[in-house]
Amino acid sequence: MASTAAADADAATATKEAIENLWEEVRDLSLGSTTTQIDHLPTPPSPLQFLRDYISPNKPCLIYNSISHWPALSLWPSTSYLQETLKSSPVSLHLTPTGRADSLIPHPHSNPSSSPLVFASAHVKKVPFSTALRRVSESNTCTEKGAKRCVAYLQEQNDCFRNEYGDLSQDCDDHIPWASQALGCLPEAVNLWIGNQLSVTSFHKDRYENLYAVITGEKRFLLLPPTDLHRMYIRDYPAAQYHYSEDTEDFELEIEDPVRYVPWCSVDPYPSFEDTNRQMAEFPLYYNGPKPFEVTVKAGQVLYLPSMWFHHVSQCPDSRGLTIAVNYWYDMRFDIKYAYFNFLQSVNYISDSAFRGGHLDSHSKVSTSKGEDELEMIEFVQNGDATGQGDSDYDD
Amino acid sequence: MASTAAADADAATATKEAIENLWEEVRDLSLGSTTTQIDHLPTPPSPLQFLRDYISPNKPCLIYNSISHWPALSLWPSTSYLQETLKSSPVSLHLTPTGRADSLIPHPHSNPSSSPLVFASAHVKKVPFSTALRRVSESNTCTEKGAKRCVAYLQEQNDCFRNEYGDLSQDCDDHIPWASQALGCLPEAVNLWIGNQLSVTSFHKDRYENLYAVITGEKRFLLLPPTDLHRMYIRDYPAAQYHYSEDTEDFELEIEDPVRYVPWCSVDPYPSFEDTNRQMAEFPLYYNGPKPFEVTVKAGQVLYLPSMWFHHVSQCPDSRGLTIAVNYWYDMRFDIKYAYFNFLQSVNYISDSAFRGGHLDSHSKVSTSKGEDELEMIEFVQNGDATGQGDSDYDD
Repeated sequence: MASTAAADADAATATKEAIENLWEEVRDLSLGSTTTQIDHLPTPPSPLQFLRDYISPNKPCLIYNSISHWPALSLWPSTSYLQETLKSSPVSLHLTPTGRADSLIPHPHSNPSSSPLVFASAHVKKVPFSTALRRVSESNTCTEKGAKRCVAYLQEQNDCFRNEYGDLSQDCDDHIPWASQALGCLPEAVNLWIGNQLSVTSFHKDRYENLYAVITGEKRFLLLPPTDLHRMYIRDYPAAQYHYSEDTEDFELEIEDPVRYVPWCSVDPYPSFEDTNRQMAEFPLYYNGPKPFEVTVKAGQVLYLPSMWFHHVSQCPDSRGLTIAVNYWYDMRFDIKYAYFNFLQSVNYISDSAFRGGHLDSHSKVSTSKGEDELEMIEFVQNGDATGQGDSDYDD
Repeated sequence: MASTAAADADAATATKEAIENLWEEVRDLSLGSTTTQIDHLPTPPSPLQFLRDYISPNKPCLIYNSISHWPALSLWPSTSYLQETLKSSPVSLHLTPTGRADSLIPHPHSNPSSSPLVFASAHVKKVPFSTALRRVSESNTCTEKGAKRCVAYLQEQNDCFRNEYGDLSQDCDDHIPWASQALGCLPEAVNLWIGNQLSVTSFHKDRYENLYAVITGEKRFLLLPPTDLHRMYIRDYPAAQYHYSEDTEDFELEIEDPVRYVPWCSVDPYPSFEDTNRQMAEFPLYYNGPKPFEVTVKAGQVLYLPSMWFHHVSQCPDSRGLTIAVNYWYDMRFDIKYAYFNFLQSVNYISDSAFRGGHLDSHSKVSTSKGEDELEMIEFVQNGDATGQGDSDYDD
């Protein structure tokens, strides 16, 4: 038994080192080890180049001058154009008190023995577009201390651009031609996002190849490759739902009954001042490891966000206070890379000390969530952001 | 300590299961789980299709009708054509007593305390082509019991087709156009192989994308994906060199001094009758796991053998007793797939029982060889076979 235990300990140490080496090697070989920048392409790549240099190696890039011909770029900065085109079309408006939906939120009624954080989804309401757009704009302005805030975000990750916003479809191409040729298919879903600087998307990944076009304002992405999954501390959190009362202007956050657990990334890359020490102590692999890649996608630019990359998204509005983007989700290939990812995910990172020096504590075993191993049928998630669809396509 | 040991044991078990799941998942998702066949393409793929469906997912395929226009197909079956074209050009002839070069051979003088197997390289001689070809053909015929055998194989993995055999270069294309376009480069090396049914290549992998064209005769490949590396039992073996005396017609097998260790696949998929039980007991992960993919490449066909795939090669001669092939080595991309492979390689497979039931023994820990983790400069290996270049680009 003794020799078995020793062999096990050796293996655990070897595995831990192997995981840390992997973070470095994928940067040394492919992504760049001395930079947090991704490649910028001055013109759209050929389909072959895009496939060879970005899709196949699962490497992000920012593409200029690919959508310059879209009418949206000149039309959508005009609020009156949008209002006139969509008029009273019913659209899905996502409401939260903080701008954080599909995000980890302290539950107000949690007791110390239960998890203090829940996975909170927005209150979703169908409202006429004119009302919806006004409410997105208004979320910005209500900043006086103590005022009740309701942050509105226009989005719905169910192919909404081709459904709810069909009247705008003439303003953009149906697909990104060089990407469609490279991938050999048309987009599975096209989504529209109209938000402001208050809406933030927490770290998650998607099982799609994502082409993300910004029309007005800016989107800021933090990106980590799939190889870094242990640094995200994916854990199970109880699903909860915001309910908003138009009468009282109050939100309630209700845990689903029966309780449903959602595996989600625990790391907040921009913690509040009060939360910073806890975050850094609890998630050392994130904070002490390689910095995430950073990219700001400006109006007229397209980000290639490769499948399975972890991404955190925030936004900067245009002069009227809005950020508008359209993203194209293409089916990913479930090939050897995906199998390797699942393998990595099912390997436990066990540190007998904190990351490169420290002490054994209850967080030293970073395990992965159940249910992520299986290849499940993927459904669009109703609430979420950016490339939403949950970290793990949810778990139920 | 007890809880640490328990966690280590849990992790070791989880890792073992994760490795076994990986073998299955890559087949379920991409390669096919109910077949040992690879895709057969009736016509050459477009560069995009080849990149998307085969190179990027690291998946082999057999391509028909891609080299039908090569003069070699009609010219090389004629021995007199070859003799007249190459005349007395000096070429590298590889000599072994068994047809196994770059292979594990019991060392005649090994004592029980040392490893009984060595990694044996052929005796290489520069001889005029006419002599060389005669000796390859003669290896076939000398079959009487007790006769001294000298198996000759014409090959040299140093871009020999463009050097030693330059006079034949008009008979084949310089490269495989759809592969060059897909990969975005020209071949790094082109090699010629003239052998007979006695020459066999043991399991190994190459850090190249390989397009393997058979001109006359047949090549038979056993293929295992890189994910299966633990099933190959890569271990370090002392390097040894055959020396052949033309006078006595005897081979001597000499271990290099100082000893140099070569990491090599331990599995022989076609063991002798006497060796079968030992092989099956010692390498259960190979024998009890998924069967290798099998493909016979006939004259006029091209095999895409993806980088890092383990392959074992045997051959069937044409009516004159020869198999002739040309292979094109293209640089592989050292991207996320390669990083994942190195990660997998550095994770120990520890079984506390033999594969799916059994007992703990000295072979239950399958570890990987040192020196394979680093990305080294790659040099052509002087001795070897098929896509040679050693399992791990050697270790020195």
